[in-house]
Amino acid sequence: MTDYLPLPGTPIEELDTPCILVDLDLAEANIAKLQSAAKDMGVHVRPHSKTSKSPYWVRKQLDAGAIGICCAKVGEAEVMVEAGITEVMITSQVIGKSKIARLLALAPAAQMIVAVEDSSNVLELSEASSAAGVEIGVIVELNVGQDRCGTDPDGAVVLARQVSEAPGLRFDGLMGYEGHLVAERDYETRKAETEKAMAIVTHTADLIRDAGISVPIVSAAGTGTYDITGRIKGITELQCGSYLFMDGDYAEVFDDFTPALSVLSTVISRQKEDAAVVDMGLKSISIDRGLAEILTPSGATIVKHSEEHTIIHLPDVKSREIKIGDKVQSRPTHGDTTINLHEYYFGIRDGKLEAVIPISARGKFR
Amino acid sequence: MTDYLPLPGTPIEELDTPCILVDLDLAEANIAKLQSAAKDMGVHVRPHSKTSKSPYWVRKQLDAGAIGICCAKVGEAEVMVEAGITEVMITSQVIGKSKIARLLALAPAAQMIVAVEDSSNVLELSEASSAAGVEIGVIVELNVGQDRCGTDPDGAVVLARQVSEAPGLRFDGLMGYEGHLVAERDYETRKAETEKAMAIVTHTADLIRDAGISVPIVSAAGTGTYDITGRIKGITELQCGSYLFMDGDYAEVFDDFTPALSVLSTVISRQKEDAAVVDMGLKSISIDRGLAEILTPSGATIVKHSEEHTIIHLPDVKSREIKIGDKVQSRPTHGDTTINLHEYYFGIRDGKLEAVIPISARGKFR
Repeated sequence: MTDYLPLPGTPIEELDTPCILVDLDLAEANIAKLQSAAKDMGVHVRPHSKTSKSPYWVRKQLDAGAIGICCAKVGEAEVMVEAGITEVMITSQVIGKSKIARLLALAPAAQMIVAVEDSSNVLELSEASSAAGVEIGVIVELNVGQDRCGTDPDGAVVLARQVSEAPGLRFDGLMGYEGHLVAERDYETRKAETEKAMAIVTHTADLIRDAGISVPIVSAAGTGTYDITGRIKGITELQCGSYLFMDGDYAEVFDDFTPALSVLSTVISRQKEDAAVVDMGLKSISIDRGLAEILTPSGATIVKHSEEHTIIHLPDVKSREIKIGDKVQSRPTHGDTTINLHEYYFGIRDGKLEAVIPISARGKFR
Repeated sequence: MTDYLPLPGTPIEELDTPCILVDLDLAEANIAKLQSAAKDMGVHVRPHSKTSKSPYWVRKQLDAGAIGICCAKVGEAEVMVEAGITEVMITSQVIGKSKIARLLALAPAAQMIVAVEDSSNVLELSEASSAAGVEIGVIVELNVGQDRCGTDPDGAVVLARQVSEAPGLRFDGLMGYEGHLVAERDYETRKAETEKAMAIVTHTADLIRDAGISVPIVSAAGTGTYDITGRIKGITELQCGSYLFMDGDYAEVFDDFTPALSVLSTVISRQKEDAAVVDMGLKSISIDRGLAEILTPSGATIVKHSEEHTIIHLPDVKSREIKIGDKVQSRPTHGDTTINLHEYYFGIRDGKLEAVIPISARGKFR
């Protein structure tokens, strides 16, 4: 299929829509800022690539000093390894013969680490990696209050021992994602609760060390807790992802990083004085964390989405100047799920397209 | 990228997840049923391909007797024309030089029809098609109460005349989509309101004929109103799309067609007795019309989605037998937006994979 992509140098107002814009200056500054903060705090950065889904951005993060990347799924890891990324941690459980075979197929080309939380999965991974003659790293996932996946401290000690003794596996350490706290709006609550959650992780690391097993990696944090978790003694690295583009929802948590992502659309209907219809719908912007904020025209708000249309309310004389063919720019509340709908970012600098950036790991959820 | 697709003959329980399953017998029966009902009512079927996004299903609909297809966007039309489909109606406005140039590029290979609602757009289309030396069909969109796009009856007469006299354009008729009524649960209300909405369309067709312009196409209907709109004198064709797979939301409207679509996932965590975590999240199932219904294990319900995970509640002893590696099957509330997240359907017959069906128009929203 022809993609009819715009050439570098194309001004924003001439881009075909709907499309994702990334302000390159802002995103690059976000990368530099997290890396610098991590250096000051004495922790590593292993950014989560499920946000960008793009080797382009992963390379920028690695160039800035990240020690590797996180992926959510084997499918994402395949995209990254194919692009030459050699340090990949899969932060979800990889279950079943088919996915484990794919994981192991990446091991000759990259240092692979995978999260576990269950003894049967450790056995399955060990048998497969021994049979394949490769070694993979294993990190034990702890439940630190998110109540999704992850074992408890006692379970982690048992799993750490099982992994250490299992052929084909290398025990690399612990992870505990405080996902239930990263969007907590109140800083003092966020700090106190995160410290409690991270105490589970560092305490468990001590228990495992007491059992005579070394724990090189103690990994945690989302964007909203980077500066709290990063200061906790015993945490060795941060898994943040969203800091790169700072979606609308995160922008409510703090302004440590700057929103860099928007969806550009075009007005296709102006039947009413106080409303316009744009060519962006549920297939190009996500609403799982609420409706997007419209950046231009200022003051306009989203009334309703359908699959390919959005009706927007125009509140005042100024906004009502907008006509068919004009552009509307919106900031999604959830970057990760909006990015997942698109094939490309249009990277913008000084009002013009600088780079068409493939979202190569879009939809790689298997 | 390697897609690691399963071979025909693979049993459902061995399919890697998350993936979309289509029950082929049920979907084929839905196609046959709409076609048969339309024949009885004396109307044509021009099904909307924004549901399936797949030339495979479009061909089945054409083979069953459909006279052409609808697309929402030029990008979808490009996929369909490349696949050899030669009758394509774009039911949205195509605005701007870039999209119009792409639309016209399809005209030598297919009969293209496009919806308009504004005089400046007609002018833009006419200038471009004259310059390109091609003719395209134009259908005027009426607002029949959805209050999204579409002109009023007087505006339609003016536009019909403008189109009829415009070089490079052929006036093909009218469309009026009663999208605000298709999911109305009460049949009597749905019927009465649809008849009112369709009276606007048939009355406008008469006004245009009174002005000496023929109106060959009078197109309308969604799945929820096919049997009401299809019986209205003067309506020539139905644009239904969702009848093909009948998503969860539509199944609440009527049972004229049978749900044929589900998302298969795998249990990756069983830390609590009454809960499981599966490997399906917001990147593989949509929630814009609410949470999915879990088909198996029976009685289980969705507690919470995150991007790559879903926590499900297991209500009873039977459902709690489920263990890591087992499959969970869910019916999405909104098929169109869930399908848009995937690259393939896995077509199932007799419990086994019969066909891997590419969703070639996924994400073609430009």
